[in-house]
Amino acid sequence: MLGHMPVSHCTKDIQRKINFSNFLNQPTSSPANTFTELQSLMAPDDKAGDSVEPAKPKTLLRVRACFLKGVSYFSGDMKVYGQWMEKQFFLLQLLDWVLRGAAQVMFVNNPLSGLIIFAGLILQNYWWALNGFVGTLFATISALILQQNRGAIAAGLYGYNGILVGLLMAVFSSAGAWYWWLLLPNIFMSMMCPVVSSALASINSRWDLPVFTLPFNILVCLHMVATGYYNPYFPQVNIQPRSAMPNITWAQLDVAKLFMSVPVGIGQVYGCDNPWTGGIFIISLFISSPITCAHAVIGSAVGMVSGLALAAPFGDIYFGLWGYNCVLACIAIGGMFYALTWQVHLLAITCAFFCAYLSSAIANIMSRFGLPACTWPFCLSALTFLLLTTETNKIFKLPLAKVTYPEKNLRFFWKLKKKEKMEKAEKERKEVEEQKKIIKETMILNEQEKRVLERMEEGREESERSEGNDDETHGEDHAPGVQQQHTANTPVEN
Amino acid sequence: MLGHMPVSHCTKDIQRKINFSNFLNQPTSSPANTFTELQSLMAPDDKAGDSVEPAKPKTLLRVRACFLKGVSYFSGDMKVYGQWMEKQFFLLQLLDWVLRGAAQVMFVNNPLSGLIIFAGLILQNYWWALNGFVGTLFATISALILQQNRGAIAAGLYGYNGILVGLLMAVFSSAGAWYWWLLLPNIFMSMMCPVVSSALASINSRWDLPVFTLPFNILVCLHMVATGYYNPYFPQVNIQPRSAMPNITWAQLDVAKLFMSVPVGIGQVYGCDNPWTGGIFIISLFISSPITCAHAVIGSAVGMVSGLALAAPFGDIYFGLWGYNCVLACIAIGGMFYALTWQVHLLAITCAFFCAYLSSAIANIMSRFGLPACTWPFCLSALTFLLLTTETNKIFKLPLAKVTYPEKNLRFFWKLKKKEKMEKAEKERKEVEEQKKIIKETMILNEQEKRVLERMEEGREESERSEGNDDETHGEDHAPGVQQQHTANTPVEN
Amino acid sequence: MLGHMPVSHCTKDIQRKINFSNFLNQPTSSPANTFTELQSLMAPDDKAGDSVEPAKPKTLLRVRACFLKGVSYFSGDMKVYGQWMEKQFFLLQLLDWVLRGAAQVMFVNNPLSGLIIFAGLILQNYWWALNGFVGTLFATISALILQQNRGAIAAGLYGYNGILVGLLMAVFSSAGAWYWWLLLPNIFMSMMCPVVSSALASINSRWDLPVFTLPFNILVCLHMVATGYYNPYFPQVNIQPRSAMPNITWAQLDVAKLFMSVPVGIGQVYGCDNPWTGGIFIISLFISSPITCAHAVIGSAVGMVSGLALAAPFGDIYFGLWGYNCVLACIAIGGMFYALTWQVHLLAITCAFFCAYLSSAIANIMSRFGLPACTWPFCLSALTFLLLTTETNKIFKLPLAKVTYPEKNLRFFWKLKKKEKMEKAEKERKEVEEQKKIIKETMILNEQEKRVLERMEEGREESERSEGNDDETHGEDHAPGVQQQHTANTPVEN
Repeated sequence: MLGHMPVSHCTKDIQRKINFSNFLNQPTSSPANTFTELQSLMAPDDKAGDSVEPAKPKTLLRVRACFLKGVSYFSGDMKVYGQWMEKQFFLLQLLDWVLRGAAQVMFVNNPLSGLIIFAGLILQNYWWALNGFVGTLFATISALILQQNRGAIAAGLYGYNGILVGLLMAVFSSAGAWYWWLLLPNIFMSMMCPVVSSALASINSRWDLPVFTLPFNILVCLHMVATGYYNPYFPQVNIQPRSAMPNITWAQLDVAKLFMSVPVGIGQVYGCDNPWTGGIFIISLFISSPITCAHAVIGSAVGMVSGLALAAPFGDIYFGLWGYNCVLACIAIGGMFYALTWQVHLLAITCAFFCAYLSSAIANIMSRFGLPACTWPFCLSALTFLLLTTETNKIFKLPLAKVTYPEKNLRFFWKLKKKEKMEKAEKERKEVEEQKKIIKETMILNEQEKRVLERMEEGREESERSEGNDDETHGEDHAPGVQQQHTANTPVEN
Repeated sequence: MLGHMPVSHCTKDIQRKINFSNFLNQPTSSPANTFTELQSLMAPDDKAGDSVEPAKPKTLLRVRACFLKGVSYFSGDMKVYGQWMEKQFFLLQLLDWVLRGAAQVMFVNNPLSGLIIFAGLILQNYWWALNGFVGTLFATISALILQQNRGAIAAGLYGYNGILVGLLMAVFSSAGAWYWWLLLPNIFMSMMCPVVSSALASINSRWDLPVFTLPFNILVCLHMVATGYYNPYFPQVNIQPRSAMPNITWAQLDVAKLFMSVPVGIGQVYGCDNPWTGGIFIISLFISSPITCAHAVIGSAVGMVSGLALAAPFGDIYFGLWGYNCVLACIAIGGMFYALTWQVHLLAITCAFFCAYLSSAIANIMSRFGLPACTWPFCLSALTFLLLTTETNKIFKLPLAKVTYPEKNLRFFWKLKKKEKMEKAEKERKEVEEQKKIIKETMILNEQEKRVLERMEEGREESERSEGNDDETHGEDHAPGVQQQHTANTPVEN
Repeated sequence: MLGHMPVSHCTKDIQRKINFSNFLNQPTSSPANTFTELQSLMAPDDKAGDSVEPAKPKTLLRVRACFLKGVSYFSGDMKVYGQWMEKQFFLLQLLDWVLRGAAQVMFVNNPLSGLIIFAGLILQNYWWALNGFVGTLFATISALILQQNRGAIAAGLYGYNGILVGLLMAVFSSAGAWYWWLLLPNIFMSMMCPVVSSALASINSRWDLPVFTLPFNILVCLHMVATGYYNPYFPQVNIQPRSAMPNITWAQLDVAKLFMSVPVGIGQVYGCDNPWTGGIFIISLFISSPITCAHAVIGSAVGMVSGLALAAPFGDIYFGLWGYNCVLACIAIGGMFYALTWQVHLLAITCAFFCAYLSSAIANIMSRFGLPACTWPFCLSALTFLLLTTETNKIFKLPLAKVTYPEKNLRFFWKLKKKEKMEKAEKERKEVEEQKKIIKETMILNEQEKRVLERMEEGREESERSEGNDDETHGEDHAPGVQQQHTANTPVEN
């Protein structure tokens, strides 16, 4: 996620999108507008649509325009709002960054989504929400102190590890809620986030890879293993490796709970097991980017299926432990860092399956050290799939600096393809012209040569004839025409 | 191994080798021809030998030529056969790639070796052989789907991780033979091989390093730790860390078994403990490359000695567990990725010792997680020794794209050295010529200057003498000679 | 540390420093000269001080000069001595390299410090000191055999891992002192040091990072885990993970022992728990570089405080286990690889706290495998902080090739800043001149053009007037002056 600085150059895109969308979509507020909005956000950036259906009633068009303009203000990365925010009071800006940071866990750069996510967290647990807020705040402040890139800070890219560090340190502490001392290591670890982020970015940038939630994984594991279950000040929950065959009876499978595990899996990204919280998170994703939302749900479902296939205890599946990594992996591959095509969509699902496998493996290994799996499986699987190189152009990895959100990434990809096509056509056109020009030039040169030769012969004859006139020698910059005029003059003088 | 695409440009080398070998080797089929063939394969690529021993009887020469031509068709990487295969039916090609993939575990790009290896596997265990075949097949198919490099696929570079994944998943499964469900994770993991290979190649290529069997190590460990001993569907064998002092009585040492551990160690590369299978593998190596074969045997012996030195239980040594990593490490360093010199040979033996140490360490660590050591020790030790940089030119690391098999690598190295020498000589020659030319040119220039000056003086005198003729000024492209002729003419005209 | 070759180009710096220091410092031998020497070593490299206070009594100046010249001979990296050593007998040189290697553990390139450190080791334990010496010696010899960079060998950069390998293998062996067989794995592992160093340097150099003590960490852990507690030949001490709540009663805290833990922490860098040995090490650091010495003490204190904060058993803190990693991390960041500013000083203290946290975490993880933490925490935390990138120029990471010791690094940093300032001024000056020149040139050109035009008009008139004389055409290389002379001549001729 680190590396894209979306502050300065994009509002016109939104404007254009709005203008164009006026003519394309129906302004409905029913569930059917899911697809509509998706289409609007995915609308290509050309003016081809402007002439389509001009006969529609004017009032409807206006209503639609208003609606879409409204949608554009709070969907995507809320660029207009972000630009307006730049001129505001510092504390307000900081709040904006913190909210964006909260949403960036899901790759969403949107303060409204962040606000809704905080609402979901409060619904889950006050103490956790507080810790999450403190984490995001201090991570952002630390990034400011360390003079990190302002655009990245403003996009919340230094906050998302902070919120996870804060939340999960509270979740895995066995000291109980409102144990205020916990804020001390919380603040220290949150402030280390930008350091670790920056260090990892130095390494990952060599392969144009984001750092994902690696800083969070490193720092939370660091805190948990440094203190552990037997620590008198900061005790951790006791996580034990599996030591007996789990009792799996398919008859006991609770289908309702199984379906519920999909939103729970999304909630578990923030360590929340409340299905309503998960539902709220789904809404916050949908607001910013429907593609992200769809892949989150798919990922969670894939994780659930994998859990069943690998004989996981049903309790773990219901609790969403098999889902959250797949959610993140599926979002990351499905449209966020690759431009979404059908091939990429299949790749995202494969990645989710691989991630589920990895989740099980890493959870087993980490449990030996009393550690949870955190989001290591997501980071490792997504990095593996981003490092993949193929010889097909259907799987296009976006340059890290151009990554924003799936819909805009798609527009970027389409523009690029169009540009390439045009450049190719242009090149061909130029080549043809070049050839024509060369033919023309050679013809001119031949003629000139002929003239010069003629003139030289003439001149020589003349000089032999004449008594004292010698003018065969000329500087380079005299055109043959001038020479001929000259030679034409000379006999007259004689 | 990834990175060399040996398809297109090398048959003439084999032809030249054959032509040259005609005059050098005795066509015997006794064991003595080991050295002969080794020499033939190592024969330098020049024509110096053509004039040697022309007095030999003609029939003998012909027989020898036939024999060597025959050898060239199935030794090395079987280029001629590979080129012929390119025009065949797709399924036949796929079989060729699968066989090459099976042999590439030992860095051998040879379908005949692959066939013999499969024979050895069938001798060991039908079920394992089947799993190995399925693994290679699906890994190759997956590489085709992911549109990986065709040359690399054809060289079996996407298959060797697949065969190991398939084999070892069957070896370490405690569900017993012919448990058909195992084919499901087998196929999934095999199909993940090209993904992990491609991702690792993206990283390793920065240091021009191969990926070795890292994808296999990652994926098999992933499967084993994700399921584990207590899994109801895919249970793994129970590997426990050492928890008591082993009872080592030197009197109990069985020397016959100790010697047998050398072929068993080679067999353990494919997870086979049958010494006959190991012997068959030695033959398959010998067919393609005697240097590889020699280093495999040396490596296995080094591993056995290290096991004795580090007080390993005799059972482990007999079982070949100390050998297989050293075999691979010794092959990789001894002529495969470095050009074979005496220094490199010693380095390969050092690497084998280091690898044995590492085997013990990694086996101890992995056993805590119920995992076998796989070929992690080989990968880590070989990568360490390939990253080594020295200031001597006796240790020459081949560019990854030029790696084929030790004998050909040596020829490449010798050619390069000869070329360098020639270039140096050429450079010196050119420098001398350049100097001569400069001297000559300055002499000419001096003469020209003299002439020009003479002529200018003449001209000035003339122009002073003449009434109206001025022709001192000339364009650049008139040679001084022309000028002089001209000036010589002018007085005549006057 | 690998990468700086300080042999050839720096004595003049020392000389200049001495000249300059003459006028700045008081030649006292009381404890007050701590600051004096610090100032002298930190003295900037300009001549600005030469004119300061010329009125001082001459004798005092002379005494001071002598003293400072003396100090310069054995402080810093002892360049003069090193250059003198280059012409000596090989075994003497080797001894110099071994001593420098012993001191390089603390980033000190000084044979005198190395000698004092060996004295401290002998005070601690004869057998350990012997193993340390053997380790350093064979690591250096191995680097020579492998033809590593001579400058790096001479700076002791191939020895410091060797001394740690030798020492710690002896410290953690449970076979007791004077178990001579231990020298065998000791020599093998020491000789592997340059291989691992070189391999790691190939990777780390991509980010311009040193390898620190990573080779030592890898090789000692390798040996310990390969043999382990249950090995009949090379048994290791039994390190067990914590399995019960430690009993921490603040009333039992022994303040004297707590303060003693600061030098003990410095001693633990070499595995020594004797506070006198630690004190001797502090002296050896002070001789070479007071900044290094100060950061070592700060680091040890930070480690002690962190241990108290994270509820470590008091015994571990007294034993210096919380200090040694912080000592190294604080030295590395505080002036060694960053140029020392206040910001960097604060960063070094932050790094020490982070390192303490990491120490606890890594110690807990490693104990599961029966391993000590070694200096992994230092390596990981220091590498993280060196990978940090910020947009401020107050945190300046020195290029690895320029790293020597904190005082000289500072001078380099100041020089660079001055140079930058001068270059900026120079650039501005040049730009102004360039503009002036352009104005002048355009004026000249205008004049020339005018002349040419005038002359051409004249010539045309002439040619029209004259009967047969045409000399308007001229070669390019005729200067306008010549043309004018010529045209001035022509009328005369006519």
